[in-house]
Amino acid sequence: MQTIEFKSKPKIIGSYSIVGPKEGKGPFGSFFDYVMKSDGFGEKTYEMAERKMFEQAVTGAIQNAGLHSGDIDLLLAGDLLNQIISSSFTARAYEFPYLGVFSACSTMAESLATGAILINAGHFHNVACATGSHFSTAERQFRFPLELGNQRVPTSQWTATAAGACVLSLEGEGPVVSMATFGKVIDYGITDVNNMGAAMAPSAADTIYTHLNETGRKPSDYDLILTGDLGKLGAEILIDLLEGRGVKLGPNYSDCGHCYYSRKQDTMCGASGCGVSASVLNSYIIKKLKAKKFKRILFVPTGALMSTTATQQGESIPGISHAIVLEAGGD
Amino acid sequence: MQTIEFKSKPKIIGSYSIVGPKEGKGPFGSFFDYVMKSDGFGEKTYEMAERKMFEQAVTGAIQNAGLHSGDIDLLLAGDLLNQIISSSFTARAYEFPYLGVFSACSTMAESLATGAILINAGHFHNVACATGSHFSTAERQFRFPLELGNQRVPTSQWTATAAGACVLSLEGEGPVVSMATFGKVIDYGITDVNNMGAAMAPSAADTIYTHLNETGRKPSDYDLILTGDLGKLGAEILIDLLEGRGVKLGPNYSDCGHCYYSRKQDTMCGASGCGVSASVLNSYIIKKLKAKKFKRILFVPTGALMSTTATQQGESIPGISHAIVLEAGGD
Repeated sequence: MQTIEFKSKPKIIGSYSIVGPKEGKGPFGSFFDYVMKSDGFGEKTYEMAERKMFEQAVTGAIQNAGLHSGDIDLLLAGDLLNQIISSSFTARAYEFPYLGVFSACSTMAESLATGAILINAGHFHNVACATGSHFSTAERQFRFPLELGNQRVPTSQWTATAAGACVLSLEGEGPVVSMATFGKVIDYGITDVNNMGAAMAPSAADTIYTHLNETGRKPSDYDLILTGDLGKLGAEILIDLLEGRGVKLGPNYSDCGHCYYSRKQDTMCGASGCGVSASVLNSYIIKKLKAKKFKRILFVPTGALMSTTATQQGESIPGISHAIVLEAGGD
Repeated sequence: MQTIEFKSKPKIIGSYSIVGPKEGKGPFGSFFDYVMKSDGFGEKTYEMAERKMFEQAVTGAIQNAGLHSGDIDLLLAGDLLNQIISSSFTARAYEFPYLGVFSACSTMAESLATGAILINAGHFHNVACATGSHFSTAERQFRFPLELGNQRVPTSQWTATAAGACVLSLEGEGPVVSMATFGKVIDYGITDVNNMGAAMAPSAADTIYTHLNETGRKPSDYDLILTGDLGKLGAEILIDLLEGRGVKLGPNYSDCGHCYYSRKQDTMCGASGCGVSASVLNSYIIKKLKAKKFKRILFVPTGALMSTTATQQGESIPGISHAIVLEAGGD
């Protein structure tokens, strides 16, 4: 069994989303808590801007929960930068312990699942979870110097400048984290770093299939099945792969990356990066769950375990996707 | 409270350690399960050698537990390479789910603590935990090309080529993981990448102090208090820092990094890297606990949250240390 259930019903009692100016102009713009005026965010380097964004997300989620930093027992966070420095340096700013996690862009699910386990077991009262990404830091770390101004291929996705954070607790009100399905590393041999969607889709298919199989549920048991950042092409591959295994995703399926930017924003296959699913979850999704517009959703952020070293040594890009069931709760 | 207790007594039912030739010649040499003939381990690149070492450690621990790969519910692993590729690519080789974790060289404790939480809560039967490091991959990623053959400064430590893995379960026999204390990120402003011990010692002091304070225990309540890879200088700083807070570490205190190589192996302040504490734990320590030579130990791997990007941007090196209480059990 890859799926576990949380009997004590850990709740998301506070959340916060922060995005860059481009992301603020996308379809989710009005749902985000804060839109930065520039990607540089007044900092000397983009890495420092990313860190500042993380800190604002964590502090914002704590305040949104009606808590103070001293009420938080632990931070679970991860990001795309080498040695997850955005998370670690964010943790340095606070007085609570820290566990670094990494599942590439599936990190929001890993932090939520681990946090829910800790809360469910009664080990801690309030656990913060965070992740995010920054276009300029990811682009120059994984692909090319920004100054090159490279052309983008049709399968490419745009790494979002965005971060999201939330606070889990047994007390207070908010959407319930009721289940988690831990994903396997799946690799179909994709080597193109400009085709992340194809690299991640097989792992999303595997996790969703396993989740439905282990819980005895159908796609229609969810108001929404939401993958992370497969983008247009990756989402199509996922639909095909699941159909091949007898699972038909209906109109209740969507991908954050695919609908994160508007068509005229010219991002080819859409958005990618930890920040995509993290900012959508911690804004739109949580608001809709609170308003009972959604009763039960399956949140499946998707990660490409990409590394420049591995790619340069001829390796393919493995994918991983963890899934979380979120329920409106309160009835 | 940063300390949690595991009431169900998760046990380490299998373990495995693998090291490079230099490490095999050190004082722990006879305790390791496998000593590689060369750092290259028959692979085309050192990164592939590191991965092969990880796989052998995970498979070895599963076999040592008397289990098959199909019995394992989850792998928790992390390492020093960008995007923890050694762990992720190792996970690709197996059919079980994977959670990537990162606390630099405190990763063995993070994986053990998270694994113990999962086992303690009854979510899973058998969880594998692994970490490691490789001299040649770490040196060229964090410091200089190997071909430079740089001289080493007196405060430097030698990244060990070593990996360790273990299997946690409620069933079977083995040392018990009874408590975990999660560490905070602590930064005293050290910027010298050749002085990791000084960067990590404050976090070790903070975690040990907090652990003793929260549990009401004294250093003498442990047969051994073992830090990860502070090295000679870092261990001295830790002793001083704790003395300043009224805690006197006695002869039952030791540091894996300090005693990992013999003096004639000329490694300046000793060993560093995730593999140091992981290989000592999964060989010497577990064997001594099984033989009841130790009844209760405090295992405190120490992590330097170092990144070349952060260093190049003038940042200091924050430290983090998580602590685990291990007991001989069985009485």
